[in-house]
Amino acid sequence: MADELTLDRVMAAAARLVGVVHRTPVLTSTTLDQRCGGHVLLKAEPFQRTGSFKFRGAYNRLTLLEPAQWDAGVVAFSSGNHGAAVALAARLLGIRAVVVVPANGSRAKLAAIDGYGAELRRYDPATETREEVAASIAADRGLTLIRPFDDYDVMAGQGTIGVELADQAPDVQLVLVPIGGGGLAAGVSTAITGLLPGAAVIGVEPANAGDTARSMRAGHRVTIPEPDTLADGLRATEPGELTFGVNSRLLKDVVTVTEEAIVDAMRFCFERLKIVVEPSGAVPLAALLSGVVGAADRTAVVLSGGNIAPADFAGIVAG
Amino acid sequence: MADELTLDRVMAAAARLVGVVHRTPVLTSTTLDQRCGGHVLLKAEPFQRTGSFKFRGAYNRLTLLEPAQWDAGVVAFSSGNHGAAVALAARLLGIRAVVVVPANGSRAKLAAIDGYGAELRRYDPATETREEVAASIAADRGLTLIRPFDDYDVMAGQGTIGVELADQAPDVQLVLVPIGGGGLAAGVSTAITGLLPGAAVIGVEPANAGDTARSMRAGHRVTIPEPDTLADGLRATEPGELTFGVNSRLLKDVVTVTEEAIVDAMRFCFERLKIVVEPSGAVPLAALLSGVVGAADRTAVVLSGGNIAPADFAGIVAG
Repeated sequence: MADELTLDRVMAAAARLVGVVHRTPVLTSTTLDQRCGGHVLLKAEPFQRTGSFKFRGAYNRLTLLEPAQWDAGVVAFSSGNHGAAVALAARLLGIRAVVVVPANGSRAKLAAIDGYGAELRRYDPATETREEVAASIAADRGLTLIRPFDDYDVMAGQGTIGVELADQAPDVQLVLVPIGGGGLAAGVSTAITGLLPGAAVIGVEPANAGDTARSMRAGHRVTIPEPDTLADGLRATEPGELTFGVNSRLLKDVVTVTEEAIVDAMRFCFERLKIVVEPSGAVPLAALLSGVVGAADRTAVVLSGGNIAPADFAGIVAG
Repeated sequence: MADELTLDRVMAAAARLVGVVHRTPVLTSTTLDQRCGGHVLLKAEPFQRTGSFKFRGAYNRLTLLEPAQWDAGVVAFSSGNHGAAVALAARLLGIRAVVVVPANGSRAKLAAIDGYGAELRRYDPATETREEVAASIAADRGLTLIRPFDDYDVMAGQGTIGVELADQAPDVQLVLVPIGGGGLAAGVSTAITGLLPGAAVIGVEPANAGDTARSMRAGHRVTIPEPDTLADGLRATEPGELTFGVNSRLLKDVVTVTEEAIVDAMRFCFERLKIVVEPSGAVPLAALLSGVVGAADRTAVVLSGGNIAPADFAGIVAG
């Protein structure tokens, strides 16, 4: 297969993931429809295995390892959803996995990765970078590095959300997705524009982590300072090279939302939708609720994940 | 139709509710399956309109009003889910509704009922009973009292959960439902035993509100002191007369769970399932997680509602 992201590559991923990933439900809310002035379909990835969409891409990527790579094992760097996703996918496939995590990372998230059976390698963010630690472990032990987003097979796995959506809501006109590194947006936009030619996909970032929005305006990848946002899954400082190539071509637009709008969207998910959504996962809904993006007659919103520490969630909903 | 609860009456309710109620999803979790030692199917009524199953019964009941009753309007007493359900059903059908609520009730719940357009009638629990206030309003204004559970058409509406389950999970062997007044259990057991003759239905109560469990053992309705339980929707002091007639015949068993088990189940719903479930709604899952009921190969659990004040939820999950 040529090294590019195509609809065929996403469809092949979808075939591999049948019976392994949860086909997540599309939820609706009359209150939400009334507030937005259009019918809104919520693709609920908090109900995905490991609590976020990341499991789709990780599993797809791991099934495509060469036999020698499979035997040697994999390494990933992540303190959050990608780490848990690689850990579970590796366990299901019988592959050894090392996950490089910050020594000061959230105990709950590290416990989840540990619980899925991965070997944790802690690093000190003050003196090391996770990329260097992971590269060094990969070289020393012959492990394959599983990138969180800048890999076409990871993107293809995330794109299976778009394949399911096209089946669950074939009349959708607009799809909103969060953008961190851009893997989810690249996969979903490839699937949606391929399967539903009339539909548009818009990416949403926190205003405080607007690297892709700025890069889209500039026409090339722009690096921003370390972002300060609640949306810890979207703190990329620049778009991926491969993801930006796809997203700059296929996304209709990339917009940004405030931290207040993210908190409002999380509370709406709690109070009215009864879904636990993490800050990163609430970002596209924030765009709709705050009016940054107007609803189409039928708009789908990807709620990308629900992993948040109990105390953090309590502080936000009770705040 | 004879005044009894039959499968036909539940099926007629299901036909009336198509396109009005949400057909709620059945969610699954590999972690839950591993912990329980069987495949568990979660029927997620927090995603129902008004946030609980109560909307099903209220809407079905209201559609069956006589023309003169329809014109005059209805009254209900409830500080919670039944009040919101009657309020929304009445608004959708163009019926005037009065909801009798305690003056010291939760502001969030009263605001929800008010938001659905019902007239609130506050009473002082220290000097009046809600039953008396509602009866007096009904008499003065010619309104029809909509009972929360002891009414066959309300039960038939709740039973549509069982109709959906039988379609979504036809191989289910065991269904767990919460019991307060018993309307949900009566409706679901009528549907499940009628549609899936091999399947059993077990009711679950808080140990601190075990009126139906005690009544089942006694063979007649027993009254208990005012219950002290987090599960505010299950604080009935005795089973309904009509519901007990159905439940004593159709339920395989009624079991009880501790307050600690209820809190554990709510946390499990938050951390692993990403669903907001209120204490009453978590009671059947508590029975499964605490081992009070052993899982069958395929067990369905009705998560009956998700309405809880943000501060209360925060206290429980962060606790």
